Amino acid sequence: MEHLHQMAMKCKQAARELALYDTETKNRALLAVAQALEDNMASILSANARDIAYARDNGLREAMIDRLALTEERVRSMAQGARQVAALEDPIGQVIESFSRPNGLHIRKVRVPLGVVGVIYEARPNVTADSAVLCFKAGNAAFLRGGKEAFRSNTELAQIMRRALEEQGLNPDCVCLLDDTSRQTAAAMMGLRGLIDVLIPRGGAGLIRSVVENAKVPVIETGAGNCHVYVDKAADLTMAAEILFNAKCSRPSVCNAAESLLVHQDIASEFLPMAKTRLDECQVEWRGCPRTIAILPGIAPATVEDYAVEYNDYILSCKVVNCIEDAVRHIQRYTTGHSESIVTQDPQAAQLFADQVDAAAVYINASTRFTDGAEFGMGAEIGISTQKMHARGPMGLKELTSWKYIVQGQGQTR
Amino acid sequence: MEHLHQMAMKCKQAARELALYDTETKNRALLAVAQALEDNMASILSANARDIAYARDNGLREAMIDRLALTEERVRSMAQGARQVAALEDPIGQVIESFSRPNGLHIRKVRVPLGVVGVIYEARPNVTADSAVLCFKAGNAAFLRGGKEAFRSNTELAQIMRRALEEQGLNPDCVCLLDDTSRQTAAAMMGLRGLIDVLIPRGGAGLIRSVVENAKVPVIETGAGNCHVYVDKAADLTMAAEILFNAKCSRPSVCNAAESLLVHQDIASEFLPMAKTRLDECQVEWRGCPRTIAILPGIAPATVEDYAVEYNDYILSCKVVNCIEDAVRHIQRYTTGHSESIVTQDPQAAQLFADQVDAAAVYINASTRFTDGAEFGMGAEIGISTQKMHARGPMGLKELTSWKYIVQGQGQTR
Repeated sequence: MEHLHQMAMKCKQAARELALYDTETKNRALLAVAQALEDNMASILSANARDIAYARDNGLREAMIDRLALTEERVRSMAQGARQVAALEDPIGQVIESFSRPNGLHIRKVRVPLGVVGVIYEARPNVTADSAVLCFKAGNAAFLRGGKEAFRSNTELAQIMRRALEEQGLNPDCVCLLDDTSRQTAAAMMGLRGLIDVLIPRGGAGLIRSVVENAKVPVIETGAGNCHVYVDKAADLTMAAEILFNAKCSRPSVCNAAESLLVHQDIASEFLPMAKTRLDECQVEWRGCPRTIAILPGIAPATVEDYAVEYNDYILSCKVVNCIEDAVRHIQRYTTGHSESIVTQDPQAAQLFADQVDAAAVYINASTRFTDGAEFGMGAEIGISTQKMHARGPMGLKELTSWKYIVQGQGQTR
Repeated sequence: MEHLHQMAMKCKQAARELALYDTETKNRALLAVAQALEDNMASILSANARDIAYARDNGLREAMIDRLALTEERVRSMAQGARQVAALEDPIGQVIESFSRPNGLHIRKVRVPLGVVGVIYEARPNVTADSAVLCFKAGNAAFLRGGKEAFRSNTELAQIMRRALEEQGLNPDCVCLLDDTSRQTAAAMMGLRGLIDVLIPRGGAGLIRSVVENAKVPVIETGAGNCHVYVDKAADLTMAAEILFNAKCSRPSVCNAAESLLVHQDIASEFLPMAKTRLDECQVEWRGCPRTIAILPGIAPATVEDYAVEYNDYILSCKVVNCIEDAVRHIQRYTTGHSESIVTQDPQAAQLFADQVDAAAVYINASTRFTDGAEFGMGAEIGISTQKMHARGPMGLKELTSWKYIVQGQGQTR
């Protein structure tokens, strides 16, 4: 743990220096990092091949190996990501507000970095590059702890980025990767008060819960998405079927995919067969309430667990509701606060849904799949916050910052 | 704990309703609360007298009893606080950003309440009213847990406010006070994930540490202030002595009071005797580095603990530094990130200090005592955040909110 503490101290010192780099310096460094990732393609792929061989020997599931695997294309997309981030506007130094007080004090609220951003993640090595690059542009040093499966890939990626920073005359400790992937070290990292300013877990529900429950430093909770599509009695049913199909089937493994369908009773007998036919194209498995089953005989019954779970798979739970208020109540009970959609042509129903559903993103006549930094025009994201504190929804550069009040006086006392 | 959970569920339901109250409804309720506090002066003072009698019987320190004690004036000031908050602009419903995407999606980022705000505090009964009122205006239900010393006062205050809400036809559970002040219940409250959106500890360092370390819900850390005044070689020394006197002596028990003086070596022998003479008016006790002692013989030596501690008393630690960079390094080492001040006529020194000192508020030629919601023009504050996440510095109404993205489409899929 002594080693962990020393590394965190170095990272904090790097964050102090990085906070003072100007935009041009940061952008030049990001372009150098992009180039270095491409120039070192062979060594990255070779380190990754060793991770994969080791994972196979240890019987890792193929889904996990897919997350772990890098290809030329995936490495190029990391490099491209760094170039895109270089092109984004630098939030640091922006004057958020500026005002004078009656006593003559002039107060500026200025955007500053958070400091050291800790990221705890699992098997995806691209998180190493993506997180480091976003943190860097927002003036934050990244303190990274990846999963043990990707240890060789992550080490190679971190070394390449650190070397690129050093060659630009910058402090390589702006990117620190923990070289110990034990649970104890992760736990110790979550306790580094005064050294880590914010901790962001990126991964499955288990990882996120563990970080939220154990961390003694501030955490931004990301990820879990039990998203609903509610088809109102005033819906355009063809549009509703397309939105549902897209929300459920375009990429079921991600957090903004829909898990549950709510249907107003007035249109259920017309809509459900339409929806079933459309979702059959992807062999979606349905689990329904008794009234759903009465319309779609043969599907399995839905339990309370079905309504609560994030399947991340081609499975859909379904419930017929009496009215929009029932739909809202169901969502209030089961939502993880990520993304919720209503399909309706009735502006009053849309307004009620937008007002009463408490989620990072509420959609009216659109798919839940749009909750994403790029789709929101942020250029890139470090995750999607499902908590209400600090940042909610997709987190881009601005969400990786804090502020400072700079108060100019002429000797004022109180 | 069953009872705690039920109360939290009620509070959450109230938060859902409160989020939909319009500004006029909220303001009318706040004025009714103010009136009710004044109308029930006798019962509040009588409950408080019982708390004080009990505290005296149990040998509570006089300083604690002073915090606990209510007077007619203090109750009127609570009522006045509610009226002032009613007059403040309502942050809820404000459109923070609004933009369209190339695919035609129209995205609005709208300010919404946090939901249920938990407040854990100590002996000051005014926190009950002040917190409830601020939370209410920002659309949040307040889930309050006060100290056992103030139990009778808090219960009386909460009942008066709840009755006033009910008489306005509103949900009284917008203000919930825990009727159990045990440590176990406080600990259980810190674990109410999904029910409490944000937890704010208001009190001493011990309380804050305990909440930060044990909470499983998001916390906003407030309070601790180890604030420095750095007197640069280019300072107006008369101004510096006034600022130091104000920062140290105007109210030493609060978090924005100065605890430590840093003096540039070039002006130390001229400034320190001036400062000593001024601070002698309040019998301030000095603890200094060897170079300070050489100039002010007879004062006690300062230890590392002296530089680290928040005295909250008429005591000052002092260090002579070689240069501004040394002053910045000292502050980086010991700051709690609250308020830091430089006195200088040199704009470059001021800029360096403002850039490199990492604190919620950095002052140039002004007292640290201005870090305060009212002084910053926020009208009121629920505390001063010393963390960088969510809110930094004085937290007013806006800092008690989150946002929601409302996305309007016409059938868009991804």
